[in-house]
Amino acid sequence: MRLEQRDKLLFIGDSITDCERSPDGEGLFGALGKGYVSVVDGLLQSAYPELGIRVVNKGTSGNTVRDLDARWQTDVLDQKPDWLSIMIGTNDVWRQFDLPYKTESHVYLDEYKAKLEELVVRTKEGVKGIVLMTPFYLEPNKSDAMRATMDLYGEAVRTIAAKHGTLFVDTQAEFDRILEHIYPATIAWDRVHPSMVGHVALARAFLKAVGFDR
Amino acid sequence: MRLEQRDKLLFIGDSITDCERSPDGEGLFGALGKGYVSVVDGLLQSAYPELGIRVVNKGTSGNTVRDLDARWQTDVLDQKPDWLSIMIGTNDVWRQFDLPYKTESHVYLDEYKAKLEELVVRTKEGVKGIVLMTPFYLEPNKSDAMRATMDLYGEAVRTIAAKHGTLFVDTQAEFDRILEHIYPATIAWDRVHPSMVGHVALARAFLKAVGFDR
Amino acid sequence: MRLEQRDKLLFIGDSITDCERSPDGEGLFGALGKGYVSVVDGLLQSAYPELGIRVVNKGTSGNTVRDLDARWQTDVLDQKPDWLSIMIGTNDVWRQFDLPYKTESHVYLDEYKAKLEELVVRTKEGVKGIVLMTPFYLEPNKSDAMRATMDLYGEAVRTIAAKHGTLFVDTQAEFDRILEHIYPATIAWDRVHPSMVGHVALARAFLKAVGFDR
Amino acid sequence: MRLEQRDKLLFIGDSITDCERSPDGEGLFGALGKGYVSVVDGLLQSAYPELGIRVVNKGTSGNTVRDLDARWQTDVLDQKPDWLSIMIGTNDVWRQFDLPYKTESHVYLDEYKAKLEELVVRTKEGVKGIVLMTPFYLEPNKSDAMRATMDLYGEAVRTIAAKHGTLFVDTQAEFDRILEHIYPATIAWDRVHPSMVGHVALARAFLKAVGFDR
Amino acid sequence: MRLEQRDKLLFIGDSITDCERSPDGEGLFGALGKGYVSVVDGLLQSAYPELGIRVVNKGTSGNTVRDLDARWQTDVLDQKPDWLSIMIGTNDVWRQFDLPYKTESHVYLDEYKAKLEELVVRTKEGVKGIVLMTPFYLEPNKSDAMRATMDLYGEAVRTIAAKHGTLFVDTQAEFDRILEHIYPATIAWDRVHPSMVGHVALARAFLKAVGFDR
Amino acid sequence: MRLEQRDKLLFIGDSITDCERSPDGEGLFGALGKGYVSVVDGLLQSAYPELGIRVVNKGTSGNTVRDLDARWQTDVLDQKPDWLSIMIGTNDVWRQFDLPYKTESHVYLDEYKAKLEELVVRTKEGVKGIVLMTPFYLEPNKSDAMRATMDLYGEAVRTIAAKHGTLFVDTQAEFDRILEHIYPATIAWDRVHPSMVGHVALARAFLKAVGFDR
Amino acid sequence: MRLEQRDKLLFIGDSITDCERSPDGEGLFGALGKGYVSVVDGLLQSAYPELGIRVVNKGTSGNTVRDLDARWQTDVLDQKPDWLSIMIGTNDVWRQFDLPYKTESHVYLDEYKAKLEELVVRTKEGVKGIVLMTPFYLEPNKSDAMRATMDLYGEAVRTIAAKHGTLFVDTQAEFDRILEHIYPATIAWDRVHPSMVGHVALARAFLKAVGFDR
Amino acid sequence: MRLEQRDKLLFIGDSITDCERSPDGEGLFGALGKGYVSVVDGLLQSAYPELGIRVVNKGTSGNTVRDLDARWQTDVLDQKPDWLSIMIGTNDVWRQFDLPYKTESHVYLDEYKAKLEELVVRTKEGVKGIVLMTPFYLEPNKSDAMRATMDLYGEAVRTIAAKHGTLFVDTQAEFDRILEHIYPATIAWDRVHPSMVGHVALARAFLKAVGFDR
Repeated sequence: MRLEQRDKLLFIGDSITDCERSPDGEGLFGALGKGYVSVVDGLLQSAYPELGIRVVNKGTSGNTVRDLDARWQTDVLDQKPDWLSIMIGTNDVWRQFDLPYKTESHVYLDEYKAKLEELVVRTKEGVKGIVLMTPFYLEPNKSDAMRATMDLYGEAVRTIAAKHGTLFVDTQAEFDRILEHIYPATIAWDRVHPSMVGHVALARAFLKAVGFDR
Repeated sequence: MRLEQRDKLLFIGDSITDCERSPDGEGLFGALGKGYVSVVDGLLQSAYPELGIRVVNKGTSGNTVRDLDARWQTDVLDQKPDWLSIMIGTNDVWRQFDLPYKTESHVYLDEYKAKLEELVVRTKEGVKGIVLMTPFYLEPNKSDAMRATMDLYGEAVRTIAAKHGTLFVDTQAEFDRILEHIYPATIAWDRVHPSMVGHVALARAFLKAVGFDR
Repeated sequence: MRLEQRDKLLFIGDSITDCERSPDGEGLFGALGKGYVSVVDGLLQSAYPELGIRVVNKGTSGNTVRDLDARWQTDVLDQKPDWLSIMIGTNDVWRQFDLPYKTESHVYLDEYKAKLEELVVRTKEGVKGIVLMTPFYLEPNKSDAMRATMDLYGEAVRTIAAKHGTLFVDTQAEFDRILEHIYPATIAWDRVHPSMVGHVALARAFLKAVGFDR
Repeated sequence: MRLEQRDKLLFIGDSITDCERSPDGEGLFGALGKGYVSVVDGLLQSAYPELGIRVVNKGTSGNTVRDLDARWQTDVLDQKPDWLSIMIGTNDVWRQFDLPYKTESHVYLDEYKAKLEELVVRTKEGVKGIVLMTPFYLEPNKSDAMRATMDLYGEAVRTIAAKHGTLFVDTQAEFDRILEHIYPATIAWDRVHPSMVGHVALARAFLKAVGFDR
Repeated sequence: MRLEQRDKLLFIGDSITDCERSPDGEGLFGALGKGYVSVVDGLLQSAYPELGIRVVNKGTSGNTVRDLDARWQTDVLDQKPDWLSIMIGTNDVWRQFDLPYKTESHVYLDEYKAKLEELVVRTKEGVKGIVLMTPFYLEPNKSDAMRATMDLYGEAVRTIAAKHGTLFVDTQAEFDRILEHIYPATIAWDRVHPSMVGHVALARAFLKAVGFDR
Repeated sequence: MRLEQRDKLLFIGDSITDCERSPDGEGLFGALGKGYVSVVDGLLQSAYPELGIRVVNKGTSGNTVRDLDARWQTDVLDQKPDWLSIMIGTNDVWRQFDLPYKTESHVYLDEYKAKLEELVVRTKEGVKGIVLMTPFYLEPNKSDAMRATMDLYGEAVRTIAAKHGTLFVDTQAEFDRILEHIYPATIAWDRVHPSMVGHVALARAFLKAVGFDR
Repeated sequence: MRLEQRDKLLFIGDSITDCERSPDGEGLFGALGKGYVSVVDGLLQSAYPELGIRVVNKGTSGNTVRDLDARWQTDVLDQKPDWLSIMIGTNDVWRQFDLPYKTESHVYLDEYKAKLEELVVRTKEGVKGIVLMTPFYLEPNKSDAMRATMDLYGEAVRTIAAKHGTLFVDTQAEFDRILEHIYPATIAWDRVHPSMVGHVALARAFLKAVGFDR
Repeated sequence: MRLEQRDKLLFIGDSITDCERSPDGEGLFGALGKGYVSVVDGLLQSAYPELGIRVVNKGTSGNTVRDLDARWQTDVLDQKPDWLSIMIGTNDVWRQFDLPYKTESHVYLDEYKAKLEELVVRTKEGVKGIVLMTPFYLEPNKSDAMRATMDLYGEAVRTIAAKHGTLFVDTQAEFDRILEHIYPATIAWDRVHPSMVGHVALARAFLKAVGFDR
């Protein structure tokens, strides 16, 4: 298990991370939101209560990597986390497919790669570890135009993780395993925002990457 | 143009027909809902104001053909329409894919065919005409499991229309034409409930079937 | 058909254009409002899906030509539309009849003409085309004081269109044709804000002007 | 002044009478609604405080003479008023013009006359007096189709009043006097539901009929 | 009748004047509030439609003469009324009796007199006329401590009116006449905010002062 | 102290007793309401925690003695209280003064006396004790018409208490003592529903009657 | 792993089970609530997607074993589950401590034992397995009066489980392990309704009992 | 009785003091909140109406001694109270136990002591008297970790009170007396925010300290 006593673990991302978190992103009364961050916290605290891991959620609905870049100083660096998890890219891709004419809202692959790598570079010296999670799309057909695009973004995340030696979570692979048995609409009508089943899958994939073994 | 002066035209179906119609289903203040029924009415009244067509919306969200059957007497026969349009089947299929374990909520193909044909038979003598519209799924990949199933239901509608000599609207074909150029998420995040673009497409397909030519 | 692939088409006007549009005036979830702009978009996208026309709605309830003038830079010029449609004048006239004592809220004919022409002049060089739509009043009696005034404003729009070679839509003529068969209260209790029937009529008149032919 | 000490004065009618009255139709906290009934009460109590007139409002939005007939026993006869005021007919006419195709909602002139007269006959023996108020339409153009129809209904009221010797208020004449100077939209956007100005006009016309002279 | 064609008549005061007026204090949709100002307007427009009097309501709940002083420039002088009506003093007195320990909220008689007179002096040259209305308390017992105090404030208003030659309305006398027959709780549970009966009484007293005679 | 361990003490009355109690009238989360019943409970439990007194609130807003009579079996007898406190009469009197014309809502003195005594007779054998509290009016002027009437009702309560040997609380006397120093509007704008100050006064008067001495 | 393909697993209990479930207790949009039932479902579906376990939540806030008894036929037997999980007792005990005087709301140990055993007996023949979960109290001090009582109820569950050969989950032991490191207020201000941490702990304990091993 | 005529008594603290007070913290309509401050006021005004004590509530939910320090000038010194009551420390301690990882939200004992003493020193010259109330925890087990910590903070208050000669209220001792007979959950589910029973206990303890003897 890589997380150590009193480590501060910060998650950043889009609506899949956000899930109605409190403005502060930590504390009582469901402050961690209703998604995988909350499940990760529940699994960590109940399985390793002696570690006292501090979990913080800084996901924001609708965000692309551009938006992370704009709030990186206050929402990541100033928070001084020990561990940082990033899952971004859904909206970078989705806007190309649900708002095709509004091109200024699209974040194409080159910009995505460059900005994400820059964020990793700015941060990696100051933390014990970074976990890069790919974006995903709950569509098993790899020829689907949006799925194919999302796979390119996921590949970019894998490349950056390898280059900078961060931990890596292939969320798409995790969901592909499930989608062999379950039709996408059971997990998410819009193929993007998963039910609790999907959030538990994300949480388990994350925890496996950091060595959770109880 | 098949509709004649003072004809009463009644639409029945599920949420795609309903679209927040009033309980009565006709009248002032958006009583026809916000979907294709309202667009049909708008096109009819503005293009043929001299005909005075009376449009009534009896769509109900979540309905399957079972639910139509249960309310057929009050919501169709008692209304004494001159023309009747039926578009049903979305939920009959969808529940098999988004609630796979709740089998009592599924309406399989045999039951669907039998019930829909029975409704046509009960009604056709009393009206000037019936329009049967297929259900549809905004997924261009015909190998997708739910799309493939929906196509079977659409085929059943075509068969019943041919057998009983009703008018027929292939809504799936209409959407397939559009989906060659536009990704599904632009029209509907859930691939079921379309934006105004989809409702206009449905309205135009319906009107073409009844001979609208202005 | 005058609109070309990827053209950006911007509508500006008052509450008849606005119809609960989103602040941004484009995007998902009914962002184009519930009026003729949304119907125009629906007809364009469903009939010409290969063109990918981008529609933007910048109507604002209560606006007169004075208000358009005040927000012209940000809401029109900065948007860099290819095509621009303007329908204004209802409130310029209406306030003279429903708030007769509050004279500072009235925009009289001379000011209306001058300001509208100035807006056309400021804009026409930068766009492929402008569509000028007259304001209208759902009152068939041409001797009615407000109808008579509205006709003068409509005449002014026609004059400006002719002088500057813009496209022109006589919405009042369109409604007069319908009002021969339908009493005004069926379409609008206040003779100003039409039901879907009126919005479809406006959309069809607009599209006819730009050469829609499917 | 015809009203005597402790007389109970009951008003019945449609939305113009109703105006958000309480279910009971009398009592504290604006129970008389916000329309002419409340103004009548205010003028009576402030000018003749020594009389202690009891005012009750039994108007109901949307009512036609058919609806009055259906609730006459409980809402009029059981209340044992000393004086009764009836103003009905707006919706009987309006539905013919705003819902022209829904003919079952129309109350045509013959039915209107018959039902109204019957109500007067059932009631007149048990009360000190009845005041019959015409319906009205805030449209000065007597050739307007709905105005012309409303005038026929008003004429019917006048005939019944004369035949049965009730008091009579020509509300249309009262408004015609005002509309010589004020455009209808200043008083009512829909030409039916007046502002406070119209309600005061109605109250004054009513009170003049019962001999108010302070 | 002292008011002349197209005169602008502005009312200022506290919650009894305010009565849920719109921020602007004039216009459509009940902008004049639900109190005596609205009744004055209703009586003026319906009885003298040819005059076209413009009525504006600038009452604000909770105001004392100190608050009027603070907003006099924008809410009175900048409005350029032809006629001005002032009714203030209720809260100046009431706070001495319902918040006796919070002395900084009390406006004692000397300050009241001085401030009110100063407002009259600042304004009278620019208007055709001023109407000074006394504050009132719906308590017939003149020995009651708060009634006795209110009478002193009313006396101050009378003195200022006489000294500066303004019109004067003794609202307390008007209510005393009514309270001979009606117990205060019928008109106002708190003896301050009257029902419609009280507002009609205020309106009639005001109109009598300006010569209303129809 | 007359209350004994585990005694059940039930309060019944009108809005002054009710004060937003829960439907059940006992339990967690402010179920006893915000008035004197809650203060009595607070004083009993904090001063005599060893007694474990069970307090129940069955006050209902708007009630007169007629309403108590109608619900006596379920709300008092079926509850099997050890002690019963009754404070009723405010609305019996008030309606005579705020709704003077609606005479069927008035409960005059004879009926009040008879019904109240009957309730005492039906109950006294089954309980350890009854506390009769007078109604009150926060008006120090004994010549005020409503105060004078309320005093007669209070006198009736005193007579019944003496005749049947119940405990007696003169709430009016308690308030008169306070009103020597504090103007009524400080405690209640409507002279009926007191602030916390009045509720504490009622609670102390009640507790004095049952021998509270800590 | 004891659960088999297409097994239906039903949970019944109080608010800790309920957690805002839908009326139906299964389906889309968070129908399973926000508590341990939802986490169990998430873990089962994501780890064993091929099994297609159907999870149903029939918990109801505030329930005691008495309430389960009253709805056992419709909410358990009629549902025909393959597996049944029962966690009840919190309110049976809590009411003795937070509503000590309202003894009719208390379910004492003898009744609890008898009713719970009877439910197990009525059900066990018709199902593949039953899981009995103890109630718990998030108070580590075993001398605390309510904790001591809760332990007796937990002991009763253990005895019934052993006697009838059901699976058994000692939730109190699970929480005691966590409370060695975390103060109760971190998990639940009221020591009863846990945060997500507690719900994950419950879910893991349940799943361990049924042989979850992925 | 130490409080004298017209004294101004100000309370400051956290949510236990706040209890939904108005922004101003004094005045009509429950401005003092629903807690002990309101009960103190009720007892003072009803028992000593001739004194006219002015009570002000400046409690703010969630406050620690750090927050009091930040608003001391405006909320205490600028108010110029004659008497000041301070009850603070609950949140200073609680955050150490319900948000153990968020250490920047903890106020440890040294800081608490220093800041509280400094506030007393800054204030005591300008007032007639200060009342220091300890924080409390509704947990009778003195070995409980949070109770033990709270006792240290209470001890610090006692020390400061003695050193500076202020009045002192041991609220914990007051509650310990009650908790001998009543289980904590009866008074507060979270052992922090008491029911009316606890607020009355606090009010009585406060009043005893200032010599209330009626």
